[in-house]
Amino acid sequence: MAAAEAAEVAQRLARIRVVLINTTHPGNIGATARAMKVMGLSSLHLVTPKIYPHAEATARASGADDLLQRAQLHESLESALAGCGLVLGTSARLRTLPLPLLDARRAAGQALVESAQHEVALLFGRERYGLTNEEMQRCHFLVNIPSNPEYSSLNIAQAVQIMAYELRIAAQGFADIELAPPDWQPVDDVQMERLFEHLEQTLLDIRFLNPRQPKRLLARLRRLFNRARPDQNEINILRGILKATQDAARHSEET
Amino acid sequence: MAAAEAAEVAQRLARIRVVLINTTHPGNIGATARAMKVMGLSSLHLVTPKIYPHAEATARASGADDLLQRAQLHESLESALAGCGLVLGTSARLRTLPLPLLDARRAAGQALVESAQHEVALLFGRERYGLTNEEMQRCHFLVNIPSNPEYSSLNIAQAVQIMAYELRIAAQGFADIELAPPDWQPVDDVQMERLFEHLEQTLLDIRFLNPRQPKRLLARLRRLFNRARPDQNEINILRGILKATQDAARHSEET
Repeated sequence: MAAAEAAEVAQRLARIRVVLINTTHPGNIGATARAMKVMGLSSLHLVTPKIYPHAEATARASGADDLLQRAQLHESLESALAGCGLVLGTSARLRTLPLPLLDARRAAGQALVESAQHEVALLFGRERYGLTNEEMQRCHFLVNIPSNPEYSSLNIAQAVQIMAYELRIAAQGFADIELAPPDWQPVDDVQMERLFEHLEQTLLDIRFLNPRQPKRLLARLRRLFNRARPDQNEINILRGILKATQDAARHSEET
Repeated sequence: MAAAEAAEVAQRLARIRVVLINTTHPGNIGATARAMKVMGLSSLHLVTPKIYPHAEATARASGADDLLQRAQLHESLESALAGCGLVLGTSARLRTLPLPLLDARRAAGQALVESAQHEVALLFGRERYGLTNEEMQRCHFLVNIPSNPEYSSLNIAQAVQIMAYELRIAAQGFADIELAPPDWQPVDDVQMERLFEHLEQTLLDIRFLNPRQPKRLLARLRRLFNRARPDQNEINILRGILKATQDAARHSEET
């Protein structure tokens, strides 16, 4: 692979971050770093790992311990996702709150397309329990790695390896074409969270939401708006509508 | 995946054997078994492994130790390849002995096509040194797994995982799909039009919309909600919110 081509592939992959949540075994963190580096990924984020740093992580990282050195530790998932415009969650178990599902290859393609505009996060959950419902609600898509229905227990590092491999293939496939920038740029997670907070408060103000049981409805709305992938303009419109709604309701209460 | 489909995939993969030559670390043999089973491969052959059997192999195999039980041990590569009509060798280092080279995806396709006629062997060499020239001469093709030119050191189990994954994808015959969540069925255009009419009226009621120039904003909102593809449940929620908003605003006007 020519040097210029390699540099371009590296650039496309630079904005894709791997986020491990609450990992139990430090060896899996090291193996993840190795799986990433061998495919050209470099941005590792750890949300409250159980035991880290640890010699086992360094051992399993092999020549990829530079990725471990640069790995960012976070106290919350929110922190780890800051600035990400696309969030993909990997999960073996398809839960009761269904999200649009992409297989690994398609997900990699989606990630590469969007990495031109904003950071992309790939979430991996706990070894045994995967991602919680709350964590999945932060995702735009779930990623399914096809596996043996009789034994589908992919180790975290193996799942990372497969995704990293698909990402590299996708990046190489893009290496000699230029994608026209689309006119649509979805906002990042911070903007979305502010929208959801504003939405929740507004729904309380107009007495649509039962303050003791808000979660299910909010989860549905969250899913709807995540599917819509609003851009900044649309966010501004939606928040303008919410504000006008709050004003109308408040005026009602003051009189 | 339906049972009949799963059985067909399993059948296609049954004639593909993974051959590990002279493996140094028993843990890699266990991890290989796991990587194989999770993708539906089952035929493992070991040519003079350094240390085997070993507790480390069983530990890393996790729930795939049945593959270890059934693994065949050989004194020579010739024995391990008996009956194989196609032999693919994986090697990070491309040696001086030129062989036709396939990337992992194409190699998997080739293996699947030929597995209908005869056994196929996938060779993996030693951790440090890969395959010898003599061993490569037994191969019809070399397989290259694309990797970071600056750090291409794929662990054996990781290489097996990627090949097994590509084989499964090839066996399944489909790779590039997006699955809508099973309970999600977008409403038809009649429902959407009613939503937009209700939305427009509500925006007028809360004085958010300029009645003389509503079109541009409504067009933006229409685009947003069309992108979201709401189902009936979500339509009901949205219209419930609109109604509650109208009630809150009307109450304001009556007092």
